Amino acid sequence: MSTNRQVRLRRRPEGMPVDDDFELTTTARPEPGPGQVVVKNLYLSIDPTIRGWIDRDTYLPAVKPGEVVRSAGVGEVVASNHDRHRVGDRVFGLVGWQDFALLDGKAPLNPIPPGIDPRDALGVFGVTGLTAYFGLTDIGKPVAGETVVVSGAAGATGSIVGQLAKVLGCRAVGIAGGATKCRYLTEELGLDAAIDYKAEDVAARLRATCPDGIHVFFDNVGGPILDAALAHLAMRARVVVCGAISQYNDLSAAYGPKNYVNLIARRARMEGFLVLDYADRFVEGVMRLAPLVAQGKLKHRSTVVEGLAQAPAALRRLFTGDHEGKLLVKVDHPAAAAA
Amino acid sequence: MSTNRQVRLRRRPEGMPVDDDFELTTTARPEPGPGQVVVKNLYLSIDPTIRGWIDRDTYLPAVKPGEVVRSAGVGEVVASNHDRHRVGDRVFGLVGWQDFALLDGKAPLNPIPPGIDPRDALGVFGVTGLTAYFGLTDIGKPVAGETVVVSGAAGATGSIVGQLAKVLGCRAVGIAGGATKCRYLTEELGLDAAIDYKAEDVAARLRATCPDGIHVFFDNVGGPILDAALAHLAMRARVVVCGAISQYNDLSAAYGPKNYVNLIARRARMEGFLVLDYADRFVEGVMRLAPLVAQGKLKHRSTVVEGLAQAPAALRRLFTGDHEGKLLVKVDHPAAAAA
Repeated sequence: MSTNRQVRLRRRPEGMPVDDDFELTTTARPEPGPGQVVVKNLYLSIDPTIRGWIDRDTYLPAVKPGEVVRSAGVGEVVASNHDRHRVGDRVFGLVGWQDFALLDGKAPLNPIPPGIDPRDALGVFGVTGLTAYFGLTDIGKPVAGETVVVSGAAGATGSIVGQLAKVLGCRAVGIAGGATKCRYLTEELGLDAAIDYKAEDVAARLRATCPDGIHVFFDNVGGPILDAALAHLAMRARVVVCGAISQYNDLSAAYGPKNYVNLIARRARMEGFLVLDYADRFVEGVMRLAPLVAQGKLKHRSTVVEGLAQAPAALRRLFTGDHEGKLLVKVDHPAAAAA
Repeated sequence: MSTNRQVRLRRRPEGMPVDDDFELTTTARPEPGPGQVVVKNLYLSIDPTIRGWIDRDTYLPAVKPGEVVRSAGVGEVVASNHDRHRVGDRVFGLVGWQDFALLDGKAPLNPIPPGIDPRDALGVFGVTGLTAYFGLTDIGKPVAGETVVVSGAAGATGSIVGQLAKVLGCRAVGIAGGATKCRYLTEELGLDAAIDYKAEDVAARLRATCPDGIHVFFDNVGGPILDAALAHLAMRARVVVCGAISQYNDLSAAYGPKNYVNLIARRARMEGFLVLDYADRFVEGVMRLAPLVAQGKLKHRSTVVEGLAQAPAALRRLFTGDHEGKLLVKVDHPAAAAA
């Protein structure tokens, strides 16, 4: 009889999450009831939005202390009483931080097409890449020749945004932390310029690298970097509010962008979005991204953390920037290995 | 030989402008050169944007120390070498804080149609009313049944916004300072609710008066009031960034709206605009506003400060809220009166 390890929220984190905010519990492996599916998790997607889910009600209800931490992930159907999902299918959905997920077929659970690496189903072909695609094209609406600036540019979503901007004929400037990431942006991903926010004056470098101002600012980080960008907008600029990772660990000390007043003089707008709203266009997005990946125009990489028990530590790495591209946890299933 | 009194900027104000930031000088009344026009000023329009003009380059170059303070106003053509402007015409334009303006016919100088009170050409039929009209309809895009909230609601622009929202079939809630202004909003202007930011908890009152959230927030003030509104947006809300009068006197201590992150969960946008961009649609705007004024659906009022020398004091009254509706300076022309 196999077991199911689960990482549950023990208490709401204050600031940066610590290991004691979570607990690893073990229960019996679930059996599917009528209409239900059991998924054996392979990879968990470690995303900034998890920090919000475990803190408060957002666009989804908060995860309560005692509950399994909500998380996107990929896995394999190992038992099914559901018409559409058969044993052996590889699927993507909100599987949670656990070895096995019991899903009722009502929550979105999507098959992963043959030929797609399951890790890419969480990355470039998953919510990460689709966030970049819909946020940039539908909210940012860049026009060839314009300048697109992206923060968190070496991250999973940001790195796709910068490369998509180039594909669309724009100048692309990325903001990231550290010389290594900045070299990656210009030398590997082909961006026109990179700004190292840890070592450089972001405002001065934005003026130098964007002489005509910023037409589209795709923001993943918030804080003073957003403020510097707001001060250097081109006329009728679009600021895509995708995330604010610099702010998620301490909302009470959140940094409000003082330069939002510049939206008036620049006749500019800031707009937020959630990729979930584009669910009926996900196929369109993947169809646009797939050939670009095949042609080598969308490079992407991932950092894989081994072991379910490391999920809390992996979440911290999102905020310290100590990872490259898409951050994943590989679920290790030691019980199965020992069996 | 008559003279021309002029209020010049002496130095850039720090914080709230004081009288010593300006100086009253006297020169000869100008004579028109080829193509030029001399306008005898009747009323000056005291607007928040003047605080920006005397401080720094904005959407227009900064007024430099030693120069006459830039200001909209109405006056009468008293000498003309220009084809389109004849002596006796009443006109509207950027006439400056002075008795007589020498204009070259290149700067916008618009005739005031017969039957329009020249004060209204600066108010409900001027930039004030047109700012309300285009900002609300073109940026806010309210739909009948939605809730529109306006800050600075008893002010010149805000009071038109609230009434226009009612005309468009929306619920209208105004935020203003003091019980008298709040009574004016609900009892005179017909708004559905008013919030006294000086005496009430704005966030709590927004929740109480807008149970379905705020669909359109028309912001004239910025600061913590904007933040409270951002926290209570309805899905796909539009925040019209018209002004930030609470912020203009000390940009270094400006308050950035921390709750802008809520734009993500609400899929909402903040957008700035300048009424100058709608110059080619001003006639449309006046045609829409005029019948509403005639039908008594757009009430408006003004506070008239007597005397050119009082212009700096009038500017301060904008920021203390010690005025009702449109704030004007009546140019007194004592030299002419004495002649």
